[in-house]
Amino acid sequence: MKLPQGFTASGVASGLKPSGNLDVALLVSDRAATAAGVFTTNRVQAAPVQLTRRHIRRGTARAIVANAGNAKACTGKQGYADAKAMAAQTARALGMTKENVLVNSTGIIGMPLEMEKVANGIADATARLSPDGADDFARAIMTTDTRPKTADATVAGARIVGFAKGAGMIAPEMATLLAFVVTDAPVERALLVDALNETTGRTFNSISVDGCRSTNDTLLVLANGAAGGAPIGLDHEQAGAFREALDEVCASLARQIVEDGEGATKVVSIVVEGATNVREARRAAATVADSVLLRCALNGADPNWGRVLAALGTSGIPFDPNIVDVWLGGQLLCEKGAVGPGDPAKARAALLDRDVEIRIAMKRGDATATVLTNDLSAEYVRINAEYTT
Amino acid sequence: MKLPQGFTASGVASGLKPSGNLDVALLVSDRAATAAGVFTTNRVQAAPVQLTRRHIRRGTARAIVANAGNAKACTGKQGYADAKAMAAQTARALGMTKENVLVNSTGIIGMPLEMEKVANGIADATARLSPDGADDFARAIMTTDTRPKTADATVAGARIVGFAKGAGMIAPEMATLLAFVVTDAPVERALLVDALNETTGRTFNSISVDGCRSTNDTLLVLANGAAGGAPIGLDHEQAGAFREALDEVCASLARQIVEDGEGATKVVSIVVEGATNVREARRAAATVADSVLLRCALNGADPNWGRVLAALGTSGIPFDPNIVDVWLGGQLLCEKGAVGPGDPAKARAALLDRDVEIRIAMKRGDATATVLTNDLSAEYVRINAEYTT
Repeated sequence: MKLPQGFTASGVASGLKPSGNLDVALLVSDRAATAAGVFTTNRVQAAPVQLTRRHIRRGTARAIVANAGNAKACTGKQGYADAKAMAAQTARALGMTKENVLVNSTGIIGMPLEMEKVANGIADATARLSPDGADDFARAIMTTDTRPKTADATVAGARIVGFAKGAGMIAPEMATLLAFVVTDAPVERALLVDALNETTGRTFNSISVDGCRSTNDTLLVLANGAAGGAPIGLDHEQAGAFREALDEVCASLARQIVEDGEGATKVVSIVVEGATNVREARRAAATVADSVLLRCALNGADPNWGRVLAALGTSGIPFDPNIVDVWLGGQLLCEKGAVGPGDPAKARAALLDRDVEIRIAMKRGDATATVLTNDLSAEYVRINAEYTT
Repeated sequence: MKLPQGFTASGVASGLKPSGNLDVALLVSDRAATAAGVFTTNRVQAAPVQLTRRHIRRGTARAIVANAGNAKACTGKQGYADAKAMAAQTARALGMTKENVLVNSTGIIGMPLEMEKVANGIADATARLSPDGADDFARAIMTTDTRPKTADATVAGARIVGFAKGAGMIAPEMATLLAFVVTDAPVERALLVDALNETTGRTFNSISVDGCRSTNDTLLVLANGAAGGAPIGLDHEQAGAFREALDEVCASLARQIVEDGEGATKVVSIVVEGATNVREARRAAATVADSVLLRCALNGADPNWGRVLAALGTSGIPFDPNIVDVWLGGQLLCEKGAVGPGDPAKARAALLDRDVEIRIAMKRGDATATVLTNDLSAEYVRINAEYTT
């Protein structure tokens, strides 16, 4: 994967991960880039999230530095001091002011960060910056991910490249994910912010692995304009094309996160139709996606549509259960709230596939939304029972 | 377990459970009993819940009939007709009007009930009614429960006996549980309703196995006055003693449900202190209890206090993370939102016990609440992946 023009990246092993894998990642623009971000809605926000929120308020940035293996969350004043030190060290190494550096951390919560390792990692990562560093960068932000996650798109002579990590603690309100998208398109801040917020709802906020919202979720976008051309603002003729390309990259990354869901054997699309508005549709789909019981049934390819309806009933939406239809694996197993004409054996066969669809018709309005989730497996439990041991 | 005076019970095998175990349960008072109930908050309510809500509005009842193996939920008009038929058949067999019969069902959702088996079961159960039928009754309402759940208490010469079933789909807002409490104390309706609502918050609404609310949750209380004495109303000197005895029975049943949680290896008390009110304390504790990630960590005896704080952060409560303390297994692992002086090795050792406590000090006020939950095990996934197969 080649980076857009004007960007270099690297990923190095500093020793934070006991495995010795890459764990410090750096991504740098050779000029000031327009910047926008979306952050976790958790009341508990990790130190780097607090710092990066502050830095990105300026509207421009030049560097993204990230460490895996330690989330620097719940580490009190020391955690915030450490995040500031990471920004300062990176800025010094790159010859820029520290406000240009966006700091990110992922990994275990509540443990002090070994700052000497991080400092050496930052120096090493700076020395290795390269236009070909995308793959190392993608690997260095991984935690329980089994594979790196990248996506790219082109728009009007410019390119968009995205990176993400995340496999557990993934919920609709931003997940334990870090995602970074960089482009050499000359996008103005107003468009960047608006396009990012819009695409987040449809992509990163429409996935759920376990309904748990983390303390570190961060999605950052940098646009450095190195591809040249006139600035693309909200009313520019290329604005729509940029929005689409950004959506394509974010949708791909979001899907890859679900595909790599901890212990998961399936990618499940929960499609809700006939809601009164998109917000309601997404809420309905997310409530169904978060049902532990349903996700166990899917693990066993059990076409248990009753669990779909029971979960929907806890969404807080005042729908009429007696008119709802539910399809599992293409079979209409529930019609008007009772058993439908679909074939449970065919549904079971369809649920054995890796890609599974549950479709719910609420018949209240015209809005539709899709939330992606996984099945819940014994392997997920094993991974998360043994995380810190 | 002996029933209170004036009550008889039975449990029979009608063939609804493929195992051939007891599956139709009947409990009868020889005179009109004051009745009160609490029902699921799920928008999707099973037919027997709808019918029993109507019947109990009269304020008195004489019989509780229940079948296990089929929840009669999401079965449309036929389901409601079937529930009515169960009430009518039971009333005819017992020689009373059908409004005296409270109907309950538990088991799989969305399957038509084999009414011939149920009718035979009701006839059989009527023939076997006995003052010694409590144990059979308790067994006949079980589904994935590994053992029957009963509790009793005495109050002023009268007795209170309770029955419950439930092991999965247990959430703070009433769970997949059926619970029936009968007493020969002469309790007036106003006290019965008030005492029941009060105790439900502290007991059945303070447990969580998987955060999933079912379509059939029902808790019924009958007081037939057979022990004699003056009616006990809200202002009676025995009112407090009755409330306490009811609380004791309900607390025991609720705890037994958590102890029998599907696949669980631990009973976890989430104690929240320092909330602004009990409602907030219970909400905080329930949010932590529903964290899939935390419950996996507990399964592995992993003292991962960061997951406690991360879950608390999603409760919607505007607390200050930088002043919160968290104890796991008696160790202060998190102090003022960061790593505390407690010993993680001692915490890990304590988490290996069957009874585990997590204590959270929010430091916002004086209110406290405790929610009981389980760890999440690979066995839970296995049970619920294979439920209908």
